Amino acid sequence: MASTEGKTITCKAAVAWEAGKPLSIETIEVAPPRAHEVRVQIIYTGVCHTDAYTLSGKDPEGAFPIVLGHEGAGIVESIGEGVTSVKVGDYVVALYTPECKECKFCKSGKTNLCGKIRATQGRGVMPDGTSRFKCKGKDLLHFMGTSTFSQYTVLADISVVAITKDAPMDRTCLLGCGITTGYGAAVETAKVEEGSTVAVFGAGCVGLSVVQGAVAKKAGKIIVVDLNPSKKAWGEKFGATDFVNPADLKGQTIQEKLIEMTDGGCDYTFDCTGNVGVMRAALEACHKGWGQSIVIGVAAAGQEISTRPFQLVTGRVWKGCAFGGIKGRSQLPDLVDDYMTGKLKVDEFITHRKNLGEMNDAFDAMKQGDCIRCVVDMTKV
Amino acid sequence: MASTEGKTITCKAAVAWEAGKPLSIETIEVAPPRAHEVRVQIIYTGVCHTDAYTLSGKDPEGAFPIVLGHEGAGIVESIGEGVTSVKVGDYVVALYTPECKECKFCKSGKTNLCGKIRATQGRGVMPDGTSRFKCKGKDLLHFMGTSTFSQYTVLADISVVAITKDAPMDRTCLLGCGITTGYGAAVETAKVEEGSTVAVFGAGCVGLSVVQGAVAKKAGKIIVVDLNPSKKAWGEKFGATDFVNPADLKGQTIQEKLIEMTDGGCDYTFDCTGNVGVMRAALEACHKGWGQSIVIGVAAAGQEISTRPFQLVTGRVWKGCAFGGIKGRSQLPDLVDDYMTGKLKVDEFITHRKNLGEMNDAFDAMKQGDCIRCVVDMTKV
Repeated sequence: MASTEGKTITCKAAVAWEAGKPLSIETIEVAPPRAHEVRVQIIYTGVCHTDAYTLSGKDPEGAFPIVLGHEGAGIVESIGEGVTSVKVGDYVVALYTPECKECKFCKSGKTNLCGKIRATQGRGVMPDGTSRFKCKGKDLLHFMGTSTFSQYTVLADISVVAITKDAPMDRTCLLGCGITTGYGAAVETAKVEEGSTVAVFGAGCVGLSVVQGAVAKKAGKIIVVDLNPSKKAWGEKFGATDFVNPADLKGQTIQEKLIEMTDGGCDYTFDCTGNVGVMRAALEACHKGWGQSIVIGVAAAGQEISTRPFQLVTGRVWKGCAFGGIKGRSQLPDLVDDYMTGKLKVDEFITHRKNLGEMNDAFDAMKQGDCIRCVVDMTKV
Repeated sequence: MASTEGKTITCKAAVAWEAGKPLSIETIEVAPPRAHEVRVQIIYTGVCHTDAYTLSGKDPEGAFPIVLGHEGAGIVESIGEGVTSVKVGDYVVALYTPECKECKFCKSGKTNLCGKIRATQGRGVMPDGTSRFKCKGKDLLHFMGTSTFSQYTVLADISVVAITKDAPMDRTCLLGCGITTGYGAAVETAKVEEGSTVAVFGAGCVGLSVVQGAVAKKAGKIIVVDLNPSKKAWGEKFGATDFVNPADLKGQTIQEKLIEMTDGGCDYTFDCTGNVGVMRAALEACHKGWGQSIVIGVAAAGQEISTRPFQLVTGRVWKGCAFGGIKGRSQLPDLVDDYMTGKLKVDEFITHRKNLGEMNDAFDAMKQGDCIRCVVDMTKV
């Protein structure tokens, strides 16, 4: 490792040159980490719908060329000046939601949305306003502060968390987004209560992780809602008690069906689809007086949610979260422990495996109904 | 009093014969209370926008003929079989949000929306499905379980609360709706915290009561937002620290202005207008990560609220309440005590006074900008 410290590393990465085009496997240059930055060798990365959304060009804030990927696990190769939170050789997970522990947000005790590097992360650059990636003489943008589709990437030190070396990285990478997002939404954001009724719209990685969180909190009824009939078995595998396919309902809306199944509505509902019509149904399926609906899915640009305000005046609560409301540096090691002790399922999510050289196949796999998560081995091209 | 017990009482009432027409002062018959009912001599009633909304005919659930009014204080004239919570001669406030202490809602500990008589109250009849009012041979409907625009009215026993006889009834009647709704929204529903920033949209009786609640909770900044410039002085009178008239903003939305004034957004915002555009602005003026917006105002039929789901995913919370989230029988006596000990302002809200015979003038007064509350003396025709 010491041989590359302070030097530019040449490695392989999946580069998104422009919107709507496949990724290209390129040889890129990764500059050394500057002050309060960390260079990480990415060993495994997940592929998530957010990567595909940005690649599609539908995200108005998406810019190119860029190194996508935000669900990654790897090993610290070198650290910049002033880095004390991790050391060379640490096993880490990349955090697209950083945690500085110093800003107004981190100190509020009310949110995981650290504000410290938000502006530069949104513009696709490091906190000093520049990029560490170069390919064919051009700077490449960083993505979500993580860019895990490269064999080496540079992150702010507040965007990585060290975890136990006992945990396999092809599993821990998934804690960098989907699993934590769903599990945290149930456990941390909604704080699901024992015996309560829960409905989860969309049974992908996030939705099934909400189910896990609801099971952990001992919910009494956990209803999975999905248009794909194969998701019934998936829901059961993770502990759901019921399944509803909205396509099977005759003359009844999904909110009516759920209200009927739960004697007045659900205590907690979760949208894991990003569809604004589903978000409305999820709110309206809540119990009058106290039901809470949590928006997790990311809607397409320009889309809006709506409902009659009477839904809120009569006690329903509409909220949401990013990364499940989980503070990555403070809380992710506990989730890894939960995985290691068998409390948190991770292995079961991995339905597909690819190498870096097959990254476009990983995107194709993700879009198929039988794929929950595709894990990409970044060491093999 | 004993002379009327068990007998039909003939008295005066303001009757709404049809939508969009003025009220008629009529002689009506009020039947004795049946089991678990209470007959109350209404001494004072407030006039509220909800009465005007139903009278206008815009409320699709409004039915006629009906005795309106829901902000009333009076004296128990007689009680039906099984009534134990109040006795003849008690001074009471009418509760359009009843509290049975037995139903799923009351026992939840999470809401004040008692479900016990909801269905019949919504249909304008007593819990047994019939009316106690008759005029010119016709049954009149009850309104919101209270019908305080009659010199005598009959309510379910769960829809009245006895309070101290020391409190003047021309004040306590206002605790039956507007003041409690606003104050409770701040204190009970939002649980405003010390030092927090609060914005209140609409500075009528409800909005100014939110200000009072925010003051009681020691909020650091309390911003009143109103299109009527005279509301600046009203806000200050109740403890607001700032005033913004959206009409004075140049090239800036009200949400942008509030975000600027509060270094990122308000901790709590309250809609007291019933305008769905204002409800959206109130949500979007909230601080990222934790800001909560509480919908109090009642929107016109068919109107919907909307926003980008990103507002929720980044931590804002959209909720609402009815009657401020206050449980009438359990909590109203404490609010009366707060009034008696000078902690809760009530006198200041009364800008106009009328007699029962001038009920239509009271409605006209309410629609003028200088009226906060018009109190009607029901003993004088």
